[in-house]
Amino acid sequence: MNVAIMSIGDELMNGFTIDTNSSYIARQLVEFDSLEVVSKITSNDNQNDIISNIDYLISKEYEYIFITGGLGPTHDDITKKALSKYFDCKLIINEPYYRRLQAFFNKIKIKKDNHLESQAQILEISKPIPNRYGTALGMVVEYKNSTLFILPGVPKEIKGMITKEIIPSYIEPNFKKIFKSITILTTGIYESKLHDILKEEIKKYCDRCKVSFLPSYIGVKIRLLLLNKDENLEQIKNEFVKKIDKYIFGYNNDKIEDVVFNQLFNKKKTIAIAESCTGGYISKKITDKSGSSKVYKGSIIAYSNSIKESFLNVPKDILKDKGAVSEEVAIIMAENIKNKFNADIGISTTGISGPTGGNEDKPVGLIFIAIAMKNKTIVKKFDLIPRRKEHREVAVHTALNMLRLLLK
Amino acid sequence: MNVAIMSIGDELMNGFTIDTNSSYIARQLVEFDSLEVVSKITSNDNQNDIISNIDYLISKEYEYIFITGGLGPTHDDITKKALSKYFDCKLIINEPYYRRLQAFFNKIKIKKDNHLESQAQILEISKPIPNRYGTALGMVVEYKNSTLFILPGVPKEIKGMITKEIIPSYIEPNFKKIFKSITILTTGIYESKLHDILKEEIKKYCDRCKVSFLPSYIGVKIRLLLLNKDENLEQIKNEFVKKIDKYIFGYNNDKIEDVVFNQLFNKKKTIAIAESCTGGYISKKITDKSGSSKVYKGSIIAYSNSIKESFLNVPKDILKDKGAVSEEVAIIMAENIKNKFNADIGISTTGISGPTGGNEDKPVGLIFIAIAMKNKTIVKKFDLIPRRKEHREVAVHTALNMLRLLLK
Repeated sequence: MNVAIMSIGDELMNGFTIDTNSSYIARQLVEFDSLEVVSKITSNDNQNDIISNIDYLISKEYEYIFITGGLGPTHDDITKKALSKYFDCKLIINEPYYRRLQAFFNKIKIKKDNHLESQAQILEISKPIPNRYGTALGMVVEYKNSTLFILPGVPKEIKGMITKEIIPSYIEPNFKKIFKSITILTTGIYESKLHDILKEEIKKYCDRCKVSFLPSYIGVKIRLLLLNKDENLEQIKNEFVKKIDKYIFGYNNDKIEDVVFNQLFNKKKTIAIAESCTGGYISKKITDKSGSSKVYKGSIIAYSNSIKESFLNVPKDILKDKGAVSEEVAIIMAENIKNKFNADIGISTTGISGPTGGNEDKPVGLIFIAIAMKNKTIVKKFDLIPRRKEHREVAVHTALNMLRLLLK
Repeated sequence: MNVAIMSIGDELMNGFTIDTNSSYIARQLVEFDSLEVVSKITSNDNQNDIISNIDYLISKEYEYIFITGGLGPTHDDITKKALSKYFDCKLIINEPYYRRLQAFFNKIKIKKDNHLESQAQILEISKPIPNRYGTALGMVVEYKNSTLFILPGVPKEIKGMITKEIIPSYIEPNFKKIFKSITILTTGIYESKLHDILKEEIKKYCDRCKVSFLPSYIGVKIRLLLLNKDENLEQIKNEFVKKIDKYIFGYNNDKIEDVVFNQLFNKKKTIAIAESCTGGYISKKITDKSGSSKVYKGSIIAYSNSIKESFLNVPKDILKDKGAVSEEVAIIMAENIKNKFNADIGISTTGISGPTGGNEDKPVGLIFIAIAMKNKTIVKKFDLIPRRKEHREVAVHTALNMLRLLLK
C-alpha cells in the first residue's frame, strides 16, 4: 500500500519554515506492515498549485494521501477552497463540533466568532477528524482509489490527530504493527571502529536488514531497519548489541541525562556540580528532567578564577602554578562541591571551549572532567572538537557518560 | 524564473531524517529578484524513482533544478548511477579533484582509497562544483531548458557549495539581491494585541507586503515579505517598528542572550546568577556566547532549600514563612549573589516548573524573577505556561528580557 504526503504552505516552499510534519507522519507509518511512503511533495498556498498536485497524487492511485496545512482561519489558508473546487463539492458546517468550539471560546472568554464557522467547516463528501489541540477540523475523503486525510499544518495538532484519531481508526484495524526498526545509541567510539567490530553481522544480515551508521559529535547511532518482515529484529539486534555493549547508552529516543537520572534515582545517590567551561549546561540537562530534585542538589558555576578560589576553595597557588584548566583544579572542584553541597557525587569541568583562551600547551578543545565519589576521585583529560558550540555539547555528553559508566 | 528542489533519500522519505536542505536552499534563493521556488519533492533511493522525478521536473521546464543527496560512497548512494542512465552519459573522474582528495587523505593518514575514485566522478556532460567540507564533488548540468545543480546530502557540504560556489558563480551574476524580507522579533505581548496595534499598517500594505504573525511561547515573530520588488521594505518596516518598538528585542536570527550580552559589554557591567527552577539554563544561555567571561562571573544553582540557606544566606524563617517560591526569597537570592560574586547585577529565579510541586496557592507555572542592581532591586511575579519544558524556556527568556529592558 503506497502512501503520499503533501505539505501545503508558502512558508515551507520559500524555506522560512522547515517541514517536520511530513517526517512525523512517515515515521508513524513506517512501523506498520506493508505501508510504504513513496512520495512527498510541497505545494504553495496557491489554488491552482494545490489542485494540480492533488490531481497528480490521485492519478498515481496512492492508497493513502496525507495533506497538511492551510486549514487555518486567515486569508492565506485556502486548502479547503481548493479542495471544494477540485471535488466540486460544497463546504458544510459540522454542527456538533461548531457548538463545542463555541462553548470552549465562551468559557475562556475569547471572542473569535468570525473564525469559528470556518474552522468547523468540512467538505460535504468528507468525514470529520476531531482536533483536540487546535480549532481546525480535519477531514477524511474517499475518492477513486485513494483515501485522503486532510489535516491542519500545526505540528502539535497533527500529532494529536495522527496518534489519537487516524492510527486507531484507519491504520491499526487494517495493518499489523511490526517491530521493524530500532536505533542503537553509542558514544565514545568512532564510526569506522564500530564498523570493523560489526562487519560480520552487517554482512550476515545485509539482505534482510538495512544497517545505517549515523555519526554525530556526541556519538554514532546505528539504525537497523528490517527489509523482510518475517525476520526477527529482536534477535538481530541482540547479535549487534553483544559485540558493542559497552558503548551503548540507550535506544531510539533515549537521552543520556535520562539514563543517568535513572541510575542515580535507583541507587539513591545525589550529585552536585562545579562547572567552569560548560557554564551551567550540565546542570541544565539534569534539571530538564522532572523529578531531578530527588538526585540533584545544586551547582556552582565558577566561570572566573576568583569564584573558583572563594567558593570552591581552589588554592591560589595551584591556580597560578597549574592553571585553571588542569587536572589538579578539576579534582579539587569535584571534591569540594561534593563536600560543600553534601552530595554523594561531585562532578566538575574545566576547559577551553574557545574561540579564544587557548595556547600551544593548552589548546582550544582541551578539557578536564573529574568525578568525586565517597572514596575516590577520577579525572580524565579530553581533547574535544575545538569549536565552542560543539565543544560544549560534547563536553556535557562526555561528563554524563563518565558518570553513567561509573554508576553501571 | 522558476526553481525546483528535489531531495533524495530513503531516510527522508520514511521520516527518520528531517529534510533541512531544501529549506536552506530555498531560503538562500528567496532574497534574489525574480527567482521563485515553486516545487519541492522527495525521492527514494531508487533508480526508477529518481529518474521519473527528474524527468517530471525537466518536463515542467523549471529553469533551475537543485538535486541533493545520494552522492556518497556507500551502496545506497545511487544518484549518479541514475543520472548517468537518464542522460545516457558516462561518469568520468575529475583528475585535479581526485589528486587533491588523494593528497588530503595521505596527509591525514586515513586509508579511503576504494572510495576516493567514486567521490571524484562526475557526469561527462557536467561541470564540477568543488566541495570544501566533504569528499563528493557536485555537478552542474545544462539540459533542455533547465540548469541542474547536483549536490550531496550532508547539510554542511550543501551550505558550503551554495554560498561559496553556486550563488557567486551562477546566481549573483544573473539576479539582483533585494531587501525582500525581514522578521521582527517581539516578546511580552500577545499576537491578538499586536494585530490590533498594527491593523492600519497591515491594511495599508496588504497588496504590497505579506505580513505573517508567527507566535511561539517566547514571543511573536512578525515576518514582512515584499510582494512587489519596487516597494521599499525599509520604510514599511519602520512604520511597523514605530508602533511596537518597546516589544521588539531583535530582528531575523537575533537571540535575546546576544542582545543582553552586547548591552552588558557596552555598559561594562558584570552579572551573577542565582537559579532555582531554571536549574542552570540562564547561565547556559549566557555562556553559549563566546566572550561571555567578560560580562559573566558565575552562578549558584540552589535547587534545594539547604543550598539557598547555606550559600545564598536566605534566612531559614523566611523560607519557612514565605516559602522558597516567593518574592522575598527571589529578592534575597538576587541581592546576595550580586554581593557574594562581586558583580554589578544579580539575577534570580525561583518557581515551580512542574509537573509536581504546585498547590492551590502556588500553582505549577508560578515564578518570581528578581534583578538586583547597585541601588535597587526589582522583582516580578509571572504565571507562565504550566508545562516543565515550556516553563523553563519561557522563564529564561522572560528573565533575560527583564534584564534587557532594565539595561535599555
